[in-house]
Formats: sequence, structure tokens, C-alpha cells
Amino acid sequence: MINIAVDAMGGDYAPKEQVEGAMLAIRDFEDVHITLYGDESTLKKYLRDDTRVDIVHTTSTIDMGEKDPIHAIRGNRDSSMARALESVRQEKNDAVVSSGATQALIAGAHILVGRMKKMKRTAIAPVIPTAPGGKMVLLDSGGNLEIKPEYMVQQAYFASIYAEEILGIESPRVGLINIGTEEGKGRDLDNEAYRLFKENDNIRFYGNVEPKDVLNPPADILISDGFTANIVMKTIEGTAKGMGDMLKQEMMRGISGKIVSALALRKLKRFKRRLDPAEIGGAMIYGLRGVVIKAQGSSRRDGFYNAIRQASDIVRQDVIAKVADIIEQEGA
Amino acid sequence: MINIAVDAMGGDYAPKEQVEGAMLAIRDFEDVHITLYGDESTLKKYLRDDTRVDIVHTTSTIDMGEKDPIHAIRGNRDSSMARALESVRQEKNDAVVSSGATQALIAGAHILVGRMKKMKRTAIAPVIPTAPGGKMVLLDSGGNLEIKPEYMVQQAYFASIYAEEILGIESPRVGLINIGTEEGKGRDLDNEAYRLFKENDNIRFYGNVEPKDVLNPPADILISDGFTANIVMKTIEGTAKGMGDMLKQEMMRGISGKIVSALALRKLKRFKRRLDPAEIGGAMIYGLRGVVIKAQGSSRRDGFYNAIRQASDIVRQDVIAKVADIIEQEGA
Repeated sequence: MINIAVDAMGGDYAPKEQVEGAMLAIRDFEDVHITLYGDESTLKKYLRDDTRVDIVHTTSTIDMGEKDPIHAIRGNRDSSMARALESVRQEKNDAVVSSGATQALIAGAHILVGRMKKMKRTAIAPVIPTAPGGKMVLLDSGGNLEIKPEYMVQQAYFASIYAEEILGIESPRVGLINIGTEEGKGRDLDNEAYRLFKENDNIRFYGNVEPKDVLNPPADILISDGFTANIVMKTIEGTAKGMGDMLKQEMMRGISGKIVSALALRKLKRFKRRLDPAEIGGAMIYGLRGVVIKAQGSSRRDGFYNAIRQASDIVRQDVIAKVADIIEQEGA
Repeated sequence: MINIAVDAMGGDYAPKEQVEGAMLAIRDFEDVHITLYGDESTLKKYLRDDTRVDIVHTTSTIDMGEKDPIHAIRGNRDSSMARALESVRQEKNDAVVSSGATQALIAGAHILVGRMKKMKRTAIAPVIPTAPGGKMVLLDSGGNLEIKPEYMVQQAYFASIYAEEILGIESPRVGLINIGTEEGKGRDLDNEAYRLFKENDNIRFYGNVEPKDVLNPPADILISDGFTANIVMKTIEGTAKGMGDMLKQEMMRGISGKIVSALALRKLKRFKRRLDPAEIGGAMIYGLRGVVIKAQGSSRRDGFYNAIRQASDIVRQDVIAKVADIIEQEGA
């Protein structure tokens, strides 16, 4: 049985959507058991089917708008998030899924789950849909603003195994996010990372990738420092949103606008669905002793369901042990 | 009379589109005189109207795919690009427009035009259309991969005057590109830049701007170091391209697809036109003794025409002298 801890109180629509997502998951995945962490009486209101679902009552919640999330997670050991994370260290559960505050989840994961042996830095790695209908891993999307190139190599191992085992990409290629494609482009960090990736046998290195190919990338994994990759992720989000607004304006314009819009509406909806991160699940925090998935704060039940599916896939494929093998070999 | 030097040989469609763009500009702007730099016999083939147009014959061209553009510009003083740049230093012309290789143009501008007094670093600043139908300046899009925060302040002066005088934005606001909106977010560089912007009376500082608002920004100028801003620019380009591909796929799908597509085609075209950088002109290189505009390499005549219009506006509004006033005051 795969045991998944759900932080049921974190997220914009918690706990209703979290509980409903959990019920959907239980229906589809017979080898999954879920423990919901949160206010018992509230959760019970939404839990219409408790097959393979337990509730652990917790008394507080890390607020989404928390100004000092690291302090909050330290000071609220009985919060739903902290208790869910702790259960993984205690080996009561194999994975945590939370759509709570990102910085609190990262800090809590460090404190309460802990880093893998010899893993120098964790990373957050969302999966982004590509234009040809594929998927790519983008990292580090916010963990380490400044990082040593050798730590990026460890993160690339993790991403490679993740892409192969979870996304089903055979021999995934790693691309370094850069301002030009030629070797020698970019900052010292980028040049040093290029060199290390190129000479490493555990990585299938593609070379530099310019973000003008970001939705049609020649590699399956795009990596940079946590500042740059976060900027890339947010620029994708901002451009998609801005273009959506512009497109809507153009579609609605003029007399023919309304007719075209009615016809095109269904297609635009499917288009938006393709770009929706909820379709893919959440972002995994790489480098921990357990599986921690950050679902979007705005997750509805489908998004949360997908994040639970993703967590159970990672446990089933034993991703962390496979990464640990490479990292421990390297260290020897 | 405003004298504009046109590097007629640089760009994917040179010299035909460059010459045609120049003829369009001459027709519309009666106070503009253009000198075309390039192979005289080739240029003459396309030049059907030589009102206020001269040709200066040059014997070589900086190749677009040049591997070592800085070496190329140094070694080819009789190239169309070098001769056009040189003419500005010699005060034969007020501005240069080129769609030639970017790195060669930057290097050439440093060597042959020279930096403004007390200006520490140049910057490249494209203008990007925003979703509500406005414009914003993005910088530095590739000049200085690593930069001191105090040099960013000078670039922000330039951008502020440019936005006011050329884009017609009253009291333009400057936003610092960052991974979060709160003060204290980002790297040391970002924090130091934040502090300097905040306490500077010559800048109307908005604060941090996350790129998830990049096409609907709360500021008129978005600034970061040359690596980050270049990554933002290329991610906008890549996302727009990828989304366009996805949208086309969705629009063409199914039986109703063809009908919808036919109706929506005209609207999509207008949409693409809104995002087209050729509509705006080129990217100005800030911080030089003269006006240098980098038009897109793929410019057609309309794009090149717009870049000439932009160059003449900058000369007419005396932008460089206005920036020099502030920078020299600061230095005093």
C-alpha cells in the first residue's frame, strides 16, 4: 500500500477541494491509502467516502498569505502541514501533497523530512506542457537563488530519473537555460555548469537552450539557478495570461466577433486546459528523504487529484532510491 | 534636417527591405535625410526614389551568423555597419539604424560611436507591447550580463526619459524584475538595486515586479541585469510562439475546426500583428554619444521603416542631451 499524507488545510480552496480530490484518487488508485491532516469536524463534512482514508486532527493552519512562512512552520508544529510532513519522517506515510504556502512547505520539508544523504541542495521542479504536446521539467524554480554548478549536477540527476520514470521519457536530455546556444555564452556560473554537465556520464547533456524555444524545447529538462528558472516560469505564466487577454479582446472585436467567439469558445477552453498546470499535478521538491509535492495554491479537486496521482507514481517507481544510488556512487 | 545612417547590408532580407523601408520613411518624414551604407550597384537596383537619400559605397558586410562579431567589426572598417557607425562619431549623421548582428553592433557602437560622458554601461532596451494596449521598456536585454546596481540607476534614468519623450508616457514608473513583490526578495544585486532606486529622486520607483505580470505590468519600465532581462525577453518570445502553435492546433482540430479557423483567421492575424516587434521599431542602445537602433534581424520594410521613425523621434526629442543633463548633475 502507498501511504499519502494530504495537508487538507493548505490552499485557496481548502479543505473542500483537497478532500474531494482525495476521494477521486481513492476511487481510481486501489493501492493508495490517504491520511488527511486537518480539522476533523470540517473534513468530515466533505468526506462522503472514507474507503482507505483516515483523518488526523490538527489544530492550526499555515496561512497562505503568511509574511514569515519559515517562522510559521517552525512555530506551528501542530499545523496540518507540519504534521503531514512529520508523518513522512516517521515513516507513517510515503509522500506528502500540499497546496499550502510554498516557502513554508520548503522550509518545513527541510526541517521535518530532511535532505537525502549527500544531496547538497533541494530544488523545486514543475512540469510544463510543451507545444508539440509533450512535457518538460523546469528547475530550480525557486529553491536556491544562488547555487554552485556542482549542486546543479545533482539536481540534473534527479530530474533525469524523474523524467524517465514518471514522465516516461526515454533517455531524457538536459538543457542549460542560457542567453545563447553556443558554448561560452552566459555568466561564469553558466559556463562552469556547461563544462560539468558536458563531462558527466550520468547526464545526457544537450547544451544551451535559449528560452525563445521554451515551449518547444530541444531538451526534456531545462535547468538553471533558482532565480533564473523562477523568472522563466513566471514569464511563461505572465505571457500566457497576457496573450490570453489580448486574444480575447481580438476575438470579441467587431460585429463578426461575437459569432466567431461563440464558435471558438470551446476550442479556446481546450487550449487553456492544455496549459493548465493542474492537468499535470504539482511541482516535486527534489532532494528530500521523502516525496513532497507542492500542488498549486489555486488547485481545485482535479488539480489535487493529479498531484496525488503524481505522488503515488513517484513512490511506486521508487524514484528517490534510484537517485540516491547515483548520488552515493558519485560520493564514493 | 535629421540625418540618419542606414546600414543597408545587415539583416536577413538586406538590402532590399532596408532600402524599401528607407523610401517609405522619406515619403512620410520631411525633416529626415537618409544615407544608405552598402554596395552601391545593388542598392541602386532597389532605390526607385532618391529624394533626400544618398548612398555611400562600402565594400564588405558583417555576416549575420558571424562567429566572432567583435573581431569582425574591428577587422572590417569598410563594412556597411562600421561606416554607418563611424559617420555618427564624425557628426555626419545623428543616428544609425541597423538590423545587422547584435553583438557586432554593440561592439561597433562602443568602438566607433563611444559611450556618453559619465555613463558607466550601455544597455539594450526593446519596447514590448502590453496586453492592455500600452508599451513597456525592458532592459538591459543583453548588454551586461553582470552589472553593479549603481549602473542600473543610470540605465533607469535613460529609460525614464525615453518612455516619457518617445512613448509619451507621463511620469513613467520603473519596476525591478524580481521573483517576488515584497521588498527583500531576490539576490543581493536585486536588494541593493531596490534600495538605490527607492532613495533616488530622479526615478519614479514602483518596486518589485514579478514576470507573471510581464504583459500587464504595473510599471512602464522593467529593469534587471543583462542576463535576467534577456531571459525574460526570450521567454516572452518563446511562450508567444509556443502558444501560437498550440492555438493553431486547437483551432484546426475537428470538423468545426476549419469553419472556426476561416472566421478566426483574420482576428488571429491582427492578434499576431499586435505582438509583432516590427510594429514598434527596434531596440535602442542606451548610453552612447549617438542614437543607435538595432532593428530585428528579420525586419521587413515596415519594421525597418518603424525603426527609422523611432530613430528620428529620438533625435527630434533630443533624448541623449536630456539624459546627459541628469547624469552629469549626478556626477557633480
